[in-house]
Amino acid sequence: MATDNLSAVVYAKNDLRLENRPVPEPGPNEVLLRMAQVGICGSDVSYWTKGAIGHFVVLAPMVLGHESAGVVAKCGKNVTSLKPGDRVAIEPGVPCRVCEFCKKGRYNLCPDVFFCATPPDDGNLCRYYTHAADFCLKLPDHVSLEEGALLEPLSVGVHACERGGVTLGSSVLVCGAGPIGLVNLLAAKAMGASKVCITDITENRLRVAKEMGADYTILVDTNDAEKLAQQVKEVMGGMPDKTIECSGAETSVRLGILGTKSGGTIVLVGHGPDEVKIPVVNAAAREVDIRGLFRYANNYPAALDMVASGKINVKKLITHRFKLEEADKAFETARTGAGGAIKVMISCE
Amino acid sequence: MATDNLSAVVYAKNDLRLENRPVPEPGPNEVLLRMAQVGICGSDVSYWTKGAIGHFVVLAPMVLGHESAGVVAKCGKNVTSLKPGDRVAIEPGVPCRVCEFCKKGRYNLCPDVFFCATPPDDGNLCRYYTHAADFCLKLPDHVSLEEGALLEPLSVGVHACERGGVTLGSSVLVCGAGPIGLVNLLAAKAMGASKVCITDITENRLRVAKEMGADYTILVDTNDAEKLAQQVKEVMGGMPDKTIECSGAETSVRLGILGTKSGGTIVLVGHGPDEVKIPVVNAAAREVDIRGLFRYANNYPAALDMVASGKINVKKLITHRFKLEEADKAFETARTGAGGAIKVMISCE
Amino acid sequence: MATDNLSAVVYAKNDLRLENRPVPEPGPNEVLLRMAQVGICGSDVSYWTKGAIGHFVVLAPMVLGHESAGVVAKCGKNVTSLKPGDRVAIEPGVPCRVCEFCKKGRYNLCPDVFFCATPPDDGNLCRYYTHAADFCLKLPDHVSLEEGALLEPLSVGVHACERGGVTLGSSVLVCGAGPIGLVNLLAAKAMGASKVCITDITENRLRVAKEMGADYTILVDTNDAEKLAQQVKEVMGGMPDKTIECSGAETSVRLGILGTKSGGTIVLVGHGPDEVKIPVVNAAAREVDIRGLFRYANNYPAALDMVASGKINVKKLITHRFKLEEADKAFETARTGAGGAIKVMISCE
Amino acid sequence: MATDNLSAVVYAKNDLRLENRPVPEPGPNEVLLRMAQVGICGSDVSYWTKGAIGHFVVLAPMVLGHESAGVVAKCGKNVTSLKPGDRVAIEPGVPCRVCEFCKKGRYNLCPDVFFCATPPDDGNLCRYYTHAADFCLKLPDHVSLEEGALLEPLSVGVHACERGGVTLGSSVLVCGAGPIGLVNLLAAKAMGASKVCITDITENRLRVAKEMGADYTILVDTNDAEKLAQQVKEVMGGMPDKTIECSGAETSVRLGILGTKSGGTIVLVGHGPDEVKIPVVNAAAREVDIRGLFRYANNYPAALDMVASGKINVKKLITHRFKLEEADKAFETARTGAGGAIKVMISCE
Repeated sequence: MATDNLSAVVYAKNDLRLENRPVPEPGPNEVLLRMAQVGICGSDVSYWTKGAIGHFVVLAPMVLGHESAGVVAKCGKNVTSLKPGDRVAIEPGVPCRVCEFCKKGRYNLCPDVFFCATPPDDGNLCRYYTHAADFCLKLPDHVSLEEGALLEPLSVGVHACERGGVTLGSSVLVCGAGPIGLVNLLAAKAMGASKVCITDITENRLRVAKEMGADYTILVDTNDAEKLAQQVKEVMGGMPDKTIECSGAETSVRLGILGTKSGGTIVLVGHGPDEVKIPVVNAAAREVDIRGLFRYANNYPAALDMVASGKINVKKLITHRFKLEEADKAFETARTGAGGAIKVMISCE
Repeated sequence: MATDNLSAVVYAKNDLRLENRPVPEPGPNEVLLRMAQVGICGSDVSYWTKGAIGHFVVLAPMVLGHESAGVVAKCGKNVTSLKPGDRVAIEPGVPCRVCEFCKKGRYNLCPDVFFCATPPDDGNLCRYYTHAADFCLKLPDHVSLEEGALLEPLSVGVHACERGGVTLGSSVLVCGAGPIGLVNLLAAKAMGASKVCITDITENRLRVAKEMGADYTILVDTNDAEKLAQQVKEVMGGMPDKTIECSGAETSVRLGILGTKSGGTIVLVGHGPDEVKIPVVNAAAREVDIRGLFRYANNYPAALDMVASGKINVKKLITHRFKLEEADKAFETARTGAGGAIKVMISCE
Repeated sequence: MATDNLSAVVYAKNDLRLENRPVPEPGPNEVLLRMAQVGICGSDVSYWTKGAIGHFVVLAPMVLGHESAGVVAKCGKNVTSLKPGDRVAIEPGVPCRVCEFCKKGRYNLCPDVFFCATPPDDGNLCRYYTHAADFCLKLPDHVSLEEGALLEPLSVGVHACERGGVTLGSSVLVCGAGPIGLVNLLAAKAMGASKVCITDITENRLRVAKEMGADYTILVDTNDAEKLAQQVKEVMGGMPDKTIECSGAETSVRLGILGTKSGGTIVLVGHGPDEVKIPVVNAAAREVDIRGLFRYANNYPAALDMVASGKINVKKLITHRFKLEEADKAFETARTGAGGAIKVMISCE
Repeated sequence: MATDNLSAVVYAKNDLRLENRPVPEPGPNEVLLRMAQVGICGSDVSYWTKGAIGHFVVLAPMVLGHESAGVVAKCGKNVTSLKPGDRVAIEPGVPCRVCEFCKKGRYNLCPDVFFCATPPDDGNLCRYYTHAADFCLKLPDHVSLEEGALLEPLSVGVHACERGGVTLGSSVLVCGAGPIGLVNLLAAKAMGASKVCITDITENRLRVAKEMGADYTILVDTNDAEKLAQQVKEVMGGMPDKTIECSGAETSVRLGILGTKSGGTIVLVGHGPDEVKIPVVNAAAREVDIRGLFRYANNYPAALDMVASGKINVKKLITHRFKLEEADKAFETARTGAGGAIKVMISCE
């Protein structure tokens, strides 16, 4: 077992370093985790290549990584829910527990949340890391640590479909077939969507989406949202009830409004340009709701249950695997998407 | 094609007759249907053996049958949504369309609903039958008329799980593994339940439930609801979030309250004795909601979508098939459950 | 009692004529109404001054008016719910009753709805008019016909606040203090909002809003939505939970997004420019939902109950009264807002 | 300012003592409160007269009192939200903040909640008491400490009406006109109920209810729930949409089921006998939901906003006032209801 604490730290734009940091001590309600698997998220890549994502800016060195699973190495003195050796998925946001959002069950909106790899909070792409015990979810023996790490993006999909009101018989359009589009596809299907159509600008991703259960795919080659809406309607045999927008592209946001059935919902998962011109009267007059999405809240348990019961298979998302020592290569693969990369996983063991 | 209109008519308790009735003419918004498949429901059996079910009493001869599918033979003058030859599932309740329940989307509660084979309304276990065109749902070519008929009980399951709030990751207890218990099992799974436990007093039904996807089964051999609740908790690894009570048995209603997790829901699908003694303080103090269920509203389309997409397979429900001329034998099989009968289907063609 | 059927008919832009039309006969489920009070809506003015509103264009002569109440003069043969002499509020949209929207209780989205004074459907600013009996709501003796007519805009407010999820203790921002802003103020208060702030660009309207119960008012003199959001926050002692946007102005839509609390909702009631640039990432990342609104569904009964019980007082909305013969003058007043006009009411008796 | 910590302690059935206890020190996230006003709840009386309420049994001496308000005397080292001198209402339950119920916003169901004056947790009918700072709600200057204490029962009413889905235009039946029935009356009205009918077995309470805004009152003099349901229907001009059962009486539970409109809800607020015989088929077949209630969650802020804005007036609930030294007399008054006692308030200052 490693005794160092090799950590992948972004110092600034294009400055990612592997350095040894002290092994931390868990607080009374925390556990020390030996990190096992950490997936690379688009935000990790953005902190590396741009030093920022939206209004979150790297001002001081920050450990990357938040899609993660590990093994309990040591328990804080009050911890009774876990014991050393327990394999856990790590829900990376620990909220303040006292504000109105926390009390109402929408802790993802807590303004004082600690969130791995969101400045100034360190992530867990490292060997050792401490975390609140109650945000570590014990994995059954037959669920792998890789699957545990993938509960993070899957929880985004679950939260998005939940906010969209996806239910039995829903007809769902997913815009964008990257990792987040794909977990939405998986979540929508698992929630009972009878048909899911997914769009993307690359053939390869659509092929993967098809393999993962998409009923229809559309290769987007235009910025004409009205034309796309018409195409979706034809392909799906009617307008979708729900649109889950995962690309952040203005055209997709517009498509989601114009193309969704009256009384339906578009969920904005992808964050693109700060400002987008939308056909607001069309949305209003047809009562198409536009709902935002920020991370997730209370979704990890269901995500785990679905993976554990075999009803959702997330393994196909992983296309590339690296060791922590190869972080550079891993990030480069995630950045370029080379080799058809969907989800790049880093082993910290 | 038959020119007679052989019809299965209950005259009174234990008096079921096959008689020829005139072929009806469709009204302007109706279609004339050549009946194809009609399933026998517990209520049909009850009208036959008891001349009544609850407060509904057979006071005049009534055609039985309401789980049905047929083929459009003729369209009323205003009908544009269907044409002769269309194969359709028949949603058997046609509400008044003007009361507050109809306007609010809860048309199953319409006090003036016409409902097949509910006194005094005739059912459609016959050769020819007219029905409101908009309550006839066109079947895709690959969905059989038997499957069309089974959308009726399936819609009960969909409505029940919907009222229970079954969603992704739900842990669900279904009490009773008869046809209604089984469609609830199917619906719960399709809505994302991660585990479903089903109970019954006969081994055979539990075996079928297992084949149809139940994660756990419990053979009930006691009236001690507290003991059963404990057993459910052990088998499921925790209390279920939702209980769908399909047996009507007092013990099951009590089990549903005592055994459901705080903040959860029990849905009363089975109708047993009029009055039941319930642990009301336990339910109240743990905020376990008790929700009733009457038929369904707006559930046929989703039920069809799930069957058409292959996500729900209802075919296994059918264990016995008879011709309309053999109605006596069909009802006897449904009554006794002989030969492991689950759903008995009658062909009217 | 009048025997003519004087009707206010718009022929084209700026061409409003009073002409005598035949008195219609009620269909079997309809009533013939002797029209009493009809309020002028912004859409009526728009049809008159522009020959259109949005995509709705006057292509043939159309009777104006849809905020209305009348007295039953004759009942169709199937009508049992009303009798001659009954005073009724007229819900102006009669949906198809067979489409999925009608069946689900969202009949305002019915694509085949008949709606008074929306091309090509005639309104009821006339002496005699027939309407579906079940969309005529009987008024108690102590509720005036003017109040009956005002149930129409009030229902918009009720539906908007309902879609916004206004509830006990809500802090609500209403943008725009015209008639629709004011009915939203009334509805929000009646639903339990603890504070309502209303904005407008004219002092006079804010003064009326204050008289009608607004807790705070803001005179808008800038297009800077961020600055306005800050101002709202200061005035209200925190960001509002809900924003009801009734002005249609781009600045207000933006204010509604930027200024609403995380996890809150903005309802788009006012329809302004087709396309609006919105801070979409801000809305998404704070889970501020943007919900449209189209008319109302199932809101008349509650609106009437509130007026009848005295809990909502709509009378103050009426600032001007005219006779049908003075329609020109009435429309001119409504158009210019002269004399502090809020709601202009026309008597057809 | 008092330096003693006189406390009202129940030792066992009929053994209430005033004793001096040490003044406690606030923990890091707590405040020390100089107690001001504490209302006597039925549960306090029950602990005194029976040594228990339901399954909660007094096994060791316990300070009574949980409807309370006080003044901050000292802040724990991490507390920034309050300062000495702040007048606060005390939400008496402090949940564990880590279980699934806490995370989902239903912290009232937290199995590890600390709750004032629920064995073994001490209440705050004393001079000095420490409490989690975030469960102390600062009162505006114009809201009295008595009103602050009354936020506790009012929050029960708010939570009950919320669970019942009371909304604009609701017609509500409240069973029982004691303090809890009355706060439900106030909450229902404030949420937009157009009519509220309240029942009781004593004339005096109905008179108070009438003064506090009840539209109708019914003096219950029978155990025949069907007859009562008929009476309610006649008095209210139709069946109520919602019933809030606050008496715990079996007849009222039955009335709530039989007497509520199809598709409506009965909320069980009053806890009476553990087991009640209910007309379960009637509830199920009419989809009348039966929903429990346990305390409240996230309701204090709205309750305060309503009181602060003057929209709810709770002051009329207080009929008797005593000093802490007179606790015996206060409890005796609360127990007997002598002098038309509704809410008995004890000043600890």
